[in-house]
Amino acid sequence: MSSEPFKVGLLGFGTVGSAFAELLEERAAEIERFNGRRPVLGGVLTRSRGNFEEILADADVVVELMGGLEPAREYLLAAMRAGKDVVSANKQLLSQYGEELFETARQHDVRLRFEAAVAGVVPVVRVLEESLSATPIERIHGIVNGTTNFILTEMSNGASYPEALKEAQRRGFAEADPSDDVTGRDAAAKMAILARLAFGTPVHLNDVRYEGIEHLHRDDLEYARELGLGLKLIGTAERRQGGLSVRVHPTFLYSGHPLAAVSGPFNAVTVESETITEITMSGPGAGGRQTASAVLGDVVSAMTGGARAPAPPLPLRLIEDVENAFYLHLDVADRPGVLAAVTQVLGEHDVSIKSVVQRGMGERARLVMVTHQVLESRLRTAIERVGEFEFVRSAPRIIRVIEEEFL
Amino acid sequence: MSSEPFKVGLLGFGTVGSAFAELLEERAAEIERFNGRRPVLGGVLTRSRGNFEEILADADVVVELMGGLEPAREYLLAAMRAGKDVVSANKQLLSQYGEELFETARQHDVRLRFEAAVAGVVPVVRVLEESLSATPIERIHGIVNGTTNFILTEMSNGASYPEALKEAQRRGFAEADPSDDVTGRDAAAKMAILARLAFGTPVHLNDVRYEGIEHLHRDDLEYARELGLGLKLIGTAERRQGGLSVRVHPTFLYSGHPLAAVSGPFNAVTVESETITEITMSGPGAGGRQTASAVLGDVVSAMTGGARAPAPPLPLRLIEDVENAFYLHLDVADRPGVLAAVTQVLGEHDVSIKSVVQRGMGERARLVMVTHQVLESRLRTAIERVGEFEFVRSAPRIIRVIEEEFL
Repeated sequence: MSSEPFKVGLLGFGTVGSAFAELLEERAAEIERFNGRRPVLGGVLTRSRGNFEEILADADVVVELMGGLEPAREYLLAAMRAGKDVVSANKQLLSQYGEELFETARQHDVRLRFEAAVAGVVPVVRVLEESLSATPIERIHGIVNGTTNFILTEMSNGASYPEALKEAQRRGFAEADPSDDVTGRDAAAKMAILARLAFGTPVHLNDVRYEGIEHLHRDDLEYARELGLGLKLIGTAERRQGGLSVRVHPTFLYSGHPLAAVSGPFNAVTVESETITEITMSGPGAGGRQTASAVLGDVVSAMTGGARAPAPPLPLRLIEDVENAFYLHLDVADRPGVLAAVTQVLGEHDVSIKSVVQRGMGERARLVMVTHQVLESRLRTAIERVGEFEFVRSAPRIIRVIEEEFL
Repeated sequence: MSSEPFKVGLLGFGTVGSAFAELLEERAAEIERFNGRRPVLGGVLTRSRGNFEEILADADVVVELMGGLEPAREYLLAAMRAGKDVVSANKQLLSQYGEELFETARQHDVRLRFEAAVAGVVPVVRVLEESLSATPIERIHGIVNGTTNFILTEMSNGASYPEALKEAQRRGFAEADPSDDVTGRDAAAKMAILARLAFGTPVHLNDVRYEGIEHLHRDDLEYARELGLGLKLIGTAERRQGGLSVRVHPTFLYSGHPLAAVSGPFNAVTVESETITEITMSGPGAGGRQTASAVLGDVVSAMTGGARAPAPPLPLRLIEDVENAFYLHLDVADRPGVLAAVTQVLGEHDVSIKSVVQRGMGERARLVMVTHQVLESRLRTAIERVGEFEFVRSAPRIIRVIEEEFL
């Protein structure tokens, strides 16, 4: 079978862009064998070469791998208005201008694909759009940032946070300025995209509450081990109280949770629904070649067609204050009556305690507790009162806990 | 938007068929919202009611949930010849008449979808067909039978094989006659389908070497724990020596392997490739409602179109004799010289030992070894010679081991 080549207009030629061009050439013959058309690189746009209008006119699909908000946004909108399918790996753009992009795709009946923007090579976008399109999703939990998962794995093996960060940088898993990763902002952008996809409601990056890992101590990991828990930076999007909660926090997981065993620079996503119970997908966080592979998968999908247009958004209230179990770490004077005083205050605020570890350290003691489910605002009020006791030596720390069994 | 309903002709109305009909009705409105057409049940064919020709004439897609080879095969072929897309969850049929079915789909340019035939709700078929279509796959490892995974989990918690089987039956995870599951035949059928999909070469159920779990002892699990290994029934499809090896065996996994933590009646599949490193997907093995959910996902895919036609088969030699690491269990007289004699014979056959656990039990001893990679035929020859020693008290047992790290 001999037909016209399928022309890919490429915007951006950095690490991912060049890896994509290389992979496209390597795989072109095999893709042609399966799909009947051979994908070829049309024009390439970089800061110093190429003309967007010419690339657009010639392209069957436009692939945006420039990153950043502008001019990536402008180019994607122009390509869709010209009736072209587009592929993007740009999570910042999608989490901040997603509605504009989806609406443009809908108006011009073209497809916007973005598998590489969310979870590296883990095909969670495709699975949510297609395999699970018949399933009412209740909850998504994700480890969607490989850098922080690597750092937490190192810390659980005994490293301090600065040591673990340095090792991540040395091995190329963290950038020189790691703030986008370690503050949780990168994970928040990905969770905004996933939540939009799974629940069909507009979620902007600014709607996602997030917290990073910079304030975690080696001690937290050690105590957690005693309580039988693992520590991960978990993104959550779930139906709660008739609305939707989307958030990213360091979270302790009971050891049987499907995400508890995900170590090193990996990504993983668990999707829960009554009809399917749960599905977990995991794989390496993206290096250039892995990201390029996800992008190429989207290009092949554009060749074969058939993805649905994004549905018009559903309004769903975003919930800020949700119930969780919490781990609570207190640094207190080691003397009689302390535990009683703390538990009384907690009890007065309906914070119910599930387990306690107390350990003396000379004149001080560390008191670690795990609570049952409690509304976050209620816990914070209780903790504020506990923090007022003169026997409390430093600010109480809290970390969320996922403890329930699934099945 | 108002358009014609999308009519589903349903063949078979057992556990899965009735769960599918129920789920279809529950989800129809939501599917219409996303896809513009409302899926509705057209005719239903059971042994006692319905007429196939009428159902076929009226259907936009034909869903086969009868099971068994005939008349399921005949109906699917007839539907495709009439130009209809079809969906099937029938692993026996696909693993034995896959080439005929794929060839018919190709000739009539229709799509044959079968997500529910392989790994319950885990969307491995879609991911292999679409997301990974640009990726040269090297290897697939799968836990594709939830019954045996449940039994092995029970055994690793101390149950004997008969106790674990009984518990599986009591909880509805195993049938009264469990032979299709416990002999590995069900897993072999699924691996034949997966291998066809991932490597594009015809693989018949008869091409798959398989072994079940009936001969496993509680001891194997206990010793394995001492060696830091977990025990699963693993299906493997991989490129080896310029060909393809497809097999199912009880297998020990090092504890960091992504499949080692998969417990209970779950399915999981790991896909390895140079470009993506590895992806693992896991979820519950199918109950009726979960299987129905996978079938409904295929129906939605048929509504939106776009799946590619199966590629013409590639010839790839099937390899029978492949290298593996092995666990070797010997029941021997407890006296000097035994270990030396055994290791000498192994050494003469180039079987190299990685670790040994010996434990005395009165007059007898158990000798457990893990070998480095060795060709299976070579190991078997060595074991035959070892079995001839008069100090060996019962037939040596061997179990495969996956020990390599991935990254």
